[in-house]
This record gives sequence, structure tokens and C-alpha cells, in this order.
Amino acid sequence: MTTTTATTDNPTTAASQVTVLGLGSMGSAIAGTFVERGYRTTVWNRTASKSAPLVDAGATAAATAAEAVAASPLVVVCLLDSAAVDEVLASVDTAVAGKVLVNLTSGSPAQARANERWASERGAEYIDGKLMGDPPYVGTPNITVLLSGSRSAFDAHESALRELGGVGYHGEDAGLAAVEFMAQVAMGYEMLIGFLHVLKLVRAEGADVTEFGERVAGSLAAYAPLLTGIAKAVASGEYPPDLGPLRVQAALMDDMIDHRESVDVEAVRMRQVKELMDRRVADGHGEQGFSSLFELLEKEG
Amino acid sequence: MTTTTATTDNPTTAASQVTVLGLGSMGSAIAGTFVERGYRTTVWNRTASKSAPLVDAGATAAATAAEAVAASPLVVVCLLDSAAVDEVLASVDTAVAGKVLVNLTSGSPAQARANERWASERGAEYIDGKLMGDPPYVGTPNITVLLSGSRSAFDAHESALRELGGVGYHGEDAGLAAVEFMAQVAMGYEMLIGFLHVLKLVRAEGADVTEFGERVAGSLAAYAPLLTGIAKAVASGEYPPDLGPLRVQAALMDDMIDHRESVDVEAVRMRQVKELMDRRVADGHGEQGFSSLFELLEKEG
Ligand SMILES: NC(=O)c1ccc[n+]([C@@H]2O[C@H](COP(=O)([O-])OP(=O)(O)OC[C@H]3O[C@@H](n4cnc5c(N)ncnc54)[C@H](OP(=O)(O)O)[C@@H]3O)[C@@H](O)[C@H]2O)c1
Ligand SMILES: NC(=O)c1ccc[n+]([C@@H]2O[C@H](COP(=O)([O-])OP(=O)(O)OC[C@H]3O[C@@H](n4cnc5c(N)ncnc54)[C@H](OP(=O)(O)O)[C@@H]3O)[C@@H](O)[C@H]2O)c1
Repeated sequence: MTTTTATTDNPTTAASQVTVLGLGSMGSAIAGTFVERGYRTTVWNRTASKSAPLVDAGATAAATAAEAVAASPLVVVCLLDSAAVDEVLASVDTAVAGKVLVNLTSGSPAQARANERWASERGAEYIDGKLMGDPPYVGTPNITVLLSGSRSAFDAHESALRELGGVGYHGEDAGLAAVEFMAQVAMGYEMLIGFLHVLKLVRAEGADVTEFGERVAGSLAAYAPLLTGIAKAVASGEYPPDLGPLRVQAALMDDMIDHRESVDVEAVRMRQVKELMDRRVADGHGEQGFSSLFELLEKEG
Repeated sequence: MTTTTATTDNPTTAASQVTVLGLGSMGSAIAGTFVERGYRTTVWNRTASKSAPLVDAGATAAATAAEAVAASPLVVVCLLDSAAVDEVLASVDTAVAGKVLVNLTSGSPAQARANERWASERGAEYIDGKLMGDPPYVGTPNITVLLSGSRSAFDAHESALRELGGVGYHGEDAGLAAVEFMAQVAMGYEMLIGFLHVLKLVRAEGADVTEFGERVAGSLAAYAPLLTGIAKAVASGEYPPDLGPLRVQAALMDDMIDHRESVDVEAVRMRQVKELMDRRVADGHGEQGFSSLFELLEKEG
């Protein structure tokens, strides 16, 4: 915690006063962490009963979101989605003036930027944040807190934000945390939905699903250099034969599609990849690697 | 190397004699490794000129595939695809009698099992193998050699096969190496094509592609426990709220789809995932986790 002098008539310093709007799993974990670390914490939730355990722990429940906002210089918002944020912020309106609003609700870069405009029109500073990790890990390094937006607000409240987990500040553009979040989360979902389909294949072939999961988990680290290599190839526009020449990979892709169909496992991605590979090979790029498919993605929607 | 007594009139022991059919990047690396480790190596390739560097290094080039097969008890095949294997094996035909055939060409479990039948009808033992890794790594632990098929043949030639890389024997059913290969490779492609689309998104948003690649590579390890957890959930049919409750994840998915469309990045997988989540939520499973989508995949093609 910083040692900024109190700016209110409350005995606690301003830097140790925080309001949390939204007490779902994530919001409750956030508010609980602040209470535990000695912050004078004010909470509000649409369904008021959810504040009870926090009040027992030492938080103060406000009757309305606007009252909760009035109580602290730092206001952390964690609701279900952007629609909920819009609704709650509309009810707060000008009560936000002079505050720092930190919105940790999942959402898109455009929503973050719209929130920033909304806050700035009402004289508030805005930080957008995205949380990666499970609620029980709030307050530990196993939660990643991606942040972007007002640098001065970040500097003023960095120590409070660091209570929540491993913090990364991505820049002044409020949308940048959401860009990183959307990209990282998409990677995760692509991998995990692919994994679910593959588990179906493994089970259809009579192999042990749990043991397969352990082998895949064990081989994940081997993909790290491949990912950095692919990113570098995309950045430079020079495509070494990563994963072998496309010409050779395309032959394998046919076998994979046939096999998946034979065991009733969908092959959406494999067909897409095959089609991209065939086009690159036909264009005379059969000796380049997987990364070169990026050239085709850049051209289409 | 084992010390089995020679079974031919050649001074070298039978266990140190090997034939390699196919001298593309992979086949040449394989043959080169055998030569280097002191095996009496016979090679054949459709385009004969590719044998020159291996002959210079000490290998013997055979005029036909059948002659090459006749020269050694162990015959390793590494061609472009299963169609090429079929063609070359047809030309070898009964010359394979009494040999151990190890086919390291990429392909499906069905193709492996068909090759095993073909070999067994001609009095040969069959091992199917799948290689994961780049040709320059042949002969190092950075190549994974997945093997399945005749156990006795594997036992007899294990030391030779271990010259090529990290060997895993997956069982007597010749199709099992290909099952593991198809599953592992699919995981890789799902992740990597997802990554390419995400790189497009990152670049469209003006963020640095190379730095993003490094962050993703750095966070890969965090997925290992998630993958083992999902596999366990699928095996047990009990689905904890991994990645949060589906109800909360589904709200996020809408934002992701909208965002991707706004920056002209495809959202095939995200729409599929969203549709599956919505169905699980509608069926009253909104508090379960991502792994529970498996229940729906099991029911469809
Ligand atoms: N759970 C996770 O594992 C996880 C992980 C990373 C990020 N996140 C993100 O964290 C955020 C919160 O998730 P959560 O797990 O806490 O969700 P949750 O447990 O479902 O809580 C949702 C919260 O939003 C409130 N809310 C919903 N609609 C509202 C509306 N129209 N007006 C006012 N309040 C509304 C709910 O209030 P009521 O109590 O009145 O319904 C509740 O406080 C989400 O953006 C989520 O993506 C969650
Ligand atoms: N390259 C990699 O990074 C990599 C990694 C893992 C696994 N693999 C697998 O290893 C296998 C070989 O790949 P590679 O990289 O060595 O491919 P490659 O360099 O293109 O070589 C292909 C080989 O197949 C032969 N061939 C193709 N069609 C034939 C036919 N109809 N009859 C006879 N021979 C034929 C070629 O003979 P010609 O010389 O006469 O054309 C050549 O020897 C593939 O199954 C591939 O999936 C490759």
C-alpha cells in the first residue's frame, strides 16, 4: 500500500479505500481480498443478500451503486458482462465524477473504449481490466490482471490493483487489455475445443483418455518455440518450413480428415487448414511452412 | 546395438543391417543416422539420384525396392504418404517374406492395419511408426518415434529403432501409433491455426505480433493442468466448473464473436463453442465447466 495522505475526513487513507460493484464469484473474491488486506471496502450488488458474508468480514454494504461509488476514490466493477456494466453505470451516472473507475468485467476492446468515453464525459478516470484465472486464485499470482487506460490512475492505484494478482499494464488505450484478453482467451478455447474433439477420437479408438491427456500436457512445452517462431515468421513475412514443407503437410491432412470422418469426429479445422495449404501449394509456395498460411488469412474475413 | 549372431553370410551382424526405402528429407535423415552409427545401410529411392550423398557416406544403393528389401532383415519405409507406400510395397511384394517392415510414413490407423495384413499375408512382421519432429533432429531425443505392431519384432529391433529418437511403443495393434499421432498432431494444428487467426486479430488491433507470440509461448505451461483436468472430467463424466461456469463463459463468447467480426477475423470455433455452451445451459448444466461440452460432442458427428 502507498502512504498517500488521506483526502477524505475518514481516518483511513484514500489509497486504502475501495468500492466493489458486483458480488458474483469474481466480485466477491475481489472484495474479500481487499477486506482481508485491510482496505476500507464498500460493496454493492444487485441482489443485496450476496453482500452478507463480506459485511460479516468487515465490508460496508451500500444501498445503491451510486452510494457505493460515492464512498471511495477507487471503484472496481466486476459484473457478468458489458450489458450489466452499462446498466449499473447508467444508474451511477455523475456520481462517478472525480473517481477512478476500474472495470474488470470481461468484454471487448470497443466496450472498453466506450466505457472510457463515458467516464471521461463525467469527469472520471478509467482503467479497463481483464482477469485470467479462477476466482479462488484472486489475491495470488495465479490470477493475471491485464490492465490498460489512464496511466496516472494506474500509477495512483497500482498497489491496490496488485493486491488482486499478477498485474500487466498494456498501455494508455483502454482497449489494449481487452485485445490481449480476447487474443489469449481465443488461443485457449481453440486449443481446448480441439482437445475435446481429439478426446472423442482417442476414446473412439479405444485408447485411455486420461493417459492421453497427460501425454498432451507433457508435450505442451514443446510448442513454445514453434509459437514464437511462427509469430516471428508472420512479423517478418519470411516463412521457413515449420512443421515441414506445406506440400508434405497437405498430404498428411487428407489422412487426418479421412480418419476423423471414419470415427465420427468433426474435421472443420483440418478441412480449413487443408484448403489453405492446397492454395499455397498451387501458388508455388509448397516448400514454405505452416506460418505462411497467414498470407491467405490476411486476405480474407 | 544387440549382439545377435549374424544370420546372413555378411560379416556384419543381422541386427546392424538396415534398408531404408524413401530418401526424401526424412528418409535421408534416417538413412544418414544409420550410416553414421555404423549400420550396414542399403537405400533405395524412386528418384535414384537422391541416394548419392548417402552412398558417399557409406550406404549401398539398390537398383529396385525389392533388391533393397532383400539386403537386410530390417526394412524402414519413409515415403510421402500412404499412396506412395502402397505403390512401393506392391513392387516389393513377396520379397518382404521373413523381414521386419517398419513403416514410418505418416498415415491413419486404418492404413497401418491394412499394411500389417499385407505384410502378414507375405510372411513379414510389421511395425507401424509415426515421427514427430523435424528431419534435422533425427537421431536426437527431439524426434518422437511412436511405434505399434509386432512386439517380437519391436523387441528384436528396439536398439536400431532407438537410434532415431525418443521411442514410445503403444501396443500390438498396428494402428495405435497412428491413433496417437493423429490425436497429437490434431491438437497441434488446432492450436496453431487458432494462433494464426489470433495473430491476425492482434495485428489488426495494432499490437506487436512477435511480443504477443512470446507471451502466449510463456503462458502455455499454465494449460497443462487444465488439459489433464479436462481429460479426467471426460473420463469420469463429472464436470467441475473449469474456466468458470458455462453460463459465465457463454456471455464472454458473444463478446469474442462480435469483436472478431469487427476486426475481420473468422470465428468458426467460437461460434461452435458458443452454440454448445448455450445448449448445455438450456439443458440446466450452466454451472458445469468447459469439459462438459464433451457430452454433446459424443452425440454428434
Ligand atoms: N468465474 C470465473 O472463473 C471467471 C474467470 C475470469 C473472469 N471472469 C469474469 O468475471 C466477471 C464476473 O464473473 P462471475 O464469475 O463473478 O459471474 P457471476 O458469479 O455470475 O456474477 C455475475 C455478477 O453480475 C451481476 N449482474 C448480472 N447482470 C446484472 C445486471 N443486469 N445488473 C446488475 N448486476 C448484474 C450479478 O448480480 P446478481 O447477484 O444480482 O445476479 C453478479 O454480481 C465476468 O465478466 C467473467 O467473465 C470470471
Ligand atoms: N518433413 C518433416 O518435417 C516431417 C516431419 C514428421 C514426419 N514427416 C513424414 O515423413 C514422411 C516423409 O516426409 P519427407 O519430408 O521426407 O517428404 P519428401 O522430402 O517430400 O520425400 C517424399 C519421399 O516420398 C517419395 N515418393 C513420393 N511419392 C512416391 C511414389 N508414388 N512412389 C515412390 N516414392 C514416392 C519421394 O520420392 P522422390 O524423391 O522420387 O520424389 C521421396 O523419397 C511423410 O509421411 C511426412 O509426413 C515429415
